[in-house]
Amino acid sequence: MKKLIGNLLYGQSGGPTSVINASAYGVIKESLENQDVIKEVLMMKHGIKGALNEEFILISKQDEENIELLKHSPGSAFGSVRYKMADYKEDDTDYVRLLYIFQEYNIRYFLYNGGNDSMDTCDRISEYMKHVGYEVRVIGVPKTIDNDLPFTDHTPGYGSAAKYIINTIMEISYDMLAYPKGKVTIVEIMGRHAGWLTAASAVATKSGFGPDLIYLPEVPFSVEKFKKDVEKVYSKKSQCLVAVSEGLSNDEGIFLSSSSALKDAFGHFQLGGVSSKLAQIVNNEMRISSRNVELGTTQRSAAHLQSLTDVNEAISVGRTAVKYALKGESGVMVTIERVSTNPYKATCGKQPLNKIANKEKTIPKSMINKDGNFVTDEFIDYVMPLIQGENTPVYYDGVQHFSKMKNGIGSKK
Amino acid sequence: MKKLIGNLLYGQSGGPTSVINASAYGVIKESLENQDVIKEVLMMKHGIKGALNEEFILISKQDEENIELLKHSPGSAFGSVRYKMADYKEDDTDYVRLLYIFQEYNIRYFLYNGGNDSMDTCDRISEYMKHVGYEVRVIGVPKTIDNDLPFTDHTPGYGSAAKYIINTIMEISYDMLAYPKGKVTIVEIMGRHAGWLTAASAVATKSGFGPDLIYLPEVPFSVEKFKKDVEKVYSKKSQCLVAVSEGLSNDEGIFLSSSSALKDAFGHFQLGGVSSKLAQIVNNEMRISSRNVELGTTQRSAAHLQSLTDVNEAISVGRTAVKYALKGESGVMVTIERVSTNPYKATCGKQPLNKIANKEKTIPKSMINKDGNFVTDEFIDYVMPLIQGENTPVYYDGVQHFSKMKNGIGSKK
Repeated sequence: MKKLIGNLLYGQSGGPTSVINASAYGVIKESLENQDVIKEVLMMKHGIKGALNEEFILISKQDEENIELLKHSPGSAFGSVRYKMADYKEDDTDYVRLLYIFQEYNIRYFLYNGGNDSMDTCDRISEYMKHVGYEVRVIGVPKTIDNDLPFTDHTPGYGSAAKYIINTIMEISYDMLAYPKGKVTIVEIMGRHAGWLTAASAVATKSGFGPDLIYLPEVPFSVEKFKKDVEKVYSKKSQCLVAVSEGLSNDEGIFLSSSSALKDAFGHFQLGGVSSKLAQIVNNEMRISSRNVELGTTQRSAAHLQSLTDVNEAISVGRTAVKYALKGESGVMVTIERVSTNPYKATCGKQPLNKIANKEKTIPKSMINKDGNFVTDEFIDYVMPLIQGENTPVYYDGVQHFSKMKNGIGSKK
Repeated sequence: MKKLIGNLLYGQSGGPTSVINASAYGVIKESLENQDVIKEVLMMKHGIKGALNEEFILISKQDEENIELLKHSPGSAFGSVRYKMADYKEDDTDYVRLLYIFQEYNIRYFLYNGGNDSMDTCDRISEYMKHVGYEVRVIGVPKTIDNDLPFTDHTPGYGSAAKYIINTIMEISYDMLAYPKGKVTIVEIMGRHAGWLTAASAVATKSGFGPDLIYLPEVPFSVEKFKKDVEKVYSKKSQCLVAVSEGLSNDEGIFLSSSSALKDAFGHFQLGGVSSKLAQIVNNEMRISSRNVELGTTQRSAAHLQSLTDVNEAISVGRTAVKYALKGESGVMVTIERVSTNPYKATCGKQPLNKIANKEKTIPKSMINKDGNFVTDEFIDYVMPLIQGENTPVYYDGVQHFSKMKNGIGSKK
């Protein structure tokens, strides 16, 4: 294979995870170790938009400390974007512009780090460049806390978010026990179509302090069934902890979070998110004191509570993307293949981008209990290896220290 | 001083903090080191209610591991209660019962760990026992995340909650920067009357990633002023991060969280908590995309992100309470006195319980900026020492390990 000498362009896209920057770290390290081929590493500022606007963060201008801190920085250190590329056969404006940029900067390696939508972007760019005959190797780097990418055992970002959720819900559970007669506490967890994150909360239960009931988007939600389930737990324990996915929908497929999905006993529509609505139902219809907790943004940004396994895999996936590109691969996304669960062993693999793009992987039936209100041991076995180890945060004077790239996000502050 | 030989009774009361169990640890350790005088340590199950119901957790029955884990367990490991004792001159039922229990179990040391209300309970019991001539030494052990106890520089529980809030809001801020045009994000922080926790978020700003605006209950809140402040920041940065105290009230002293406090531009009352209401105002009246984050219970229960300084002081306050009692003190609460800020040095002191009971300490004017929308450096200097150091959590297989006392809370699970 002839050496394709040139520069590497990397971008982040979609919602951040707490380890997407660890993948960037992997890409940077592997590139710097191959400087005979990869001459400069350019990071798009705010994803593909940054590429189109010629806004780059140059790795050669950065110091070692800020590169190392990528392993401990949440969010997207280079900025992200939500931008859908048109089909180039219908409108090639962006593609023509991108080709010009690629030529101008001698971009021969294009790595894009994101979820389903981003793999679509990646795929379209790969196709176009092949079509016009510009030689560039395009590799997708996976990330998503939702764990919903197909053809990969799991996705970097999921393990850390799961670990944060498990440990936080354990704390909420232990805190609840303070009072002999408790409330019904409903914790709302991210995941619109796939319940992987919500399901993870079951690990807290296994450790003695976790939810009694778990409701996933994979199972059509029935308010009557929910009330019966809660009643059963509450009558025995005088308290009840429930984990719900934000994406719960009824048997007509209507999201509970949409304003028309739920009416209370008086015929009023329930306002707020899923947990707020269910807490109102418990309060108003079951006459049991309730409260709701939305875990919110911190689920994807809790750099202070990362899974070391996840961080290391995120780095590895980044490095592998560069390795594949150097070997001549293009049009593929790096995947994680589980070799064995006990002891846990995984390696990187690859899949064509067009197989991944715009598809979602949900929890298989065998991982959900028959009652549809908890998970099975098969799920626990699946998730446990992904949350192992801690990536001790870097604290200066009691506060975390995040990467501040020259010309990067937050650098003008 | 003659030795008062007998047993020690300790209880937890009010809302948990992430280090109240560290104070219990201090009490236990100091007692076990003085077994010539203190024969047995009894923990009330669910505070004073447990004492009245003769429900105790005996320390002599516990193993070393679960005692050590108290330093890493959130919530109230022995259970808590919210129970207001009557004035014994009006209704002495509970007091007569308590006297019987004290005699029955030879309780000569009574330690109660709580906030303002609990110090009131403590004070009443102390007074009654003196009144009936039963010799018992009553000591208050302070705790509250709100930091609103008077006559003490700060309160165990505050430093850890502050540290959690600072680090979490940093992550939210860094995450926000991912997109070039952001939202107005409003983060709601605990504190009904005192803004100490909300104020702490300013430390995140000092580190480069934190709120642009901070609103405290100490400053009457004006929606018009708020809109102007947000507009000013947003027009410059295209995003704005706001930290608000749940206890914001308007100039008539009405809580914004009460349903009648705020109407939107269409005359509808705003529903939800403070941050939800303000997010609606930003969205509907300023036409800027907004979202709100309620940090919730985890502020007081985040055992995984404690300040080591706070943990050590909580232990120290527990130990000191026992030491004072052994020296013959009674009717006092242990306080923390700051000797110097730089370098930070603090010692324990004491104050009469009746001086503390039912009083609240709010943030002094000198710690709030003139505009009433941020804090001054005086506050930063005050808070910084309290968040120093990390108390590395105990993880087994990726999940935290909490104390499980024999006959304690969660033990029947």
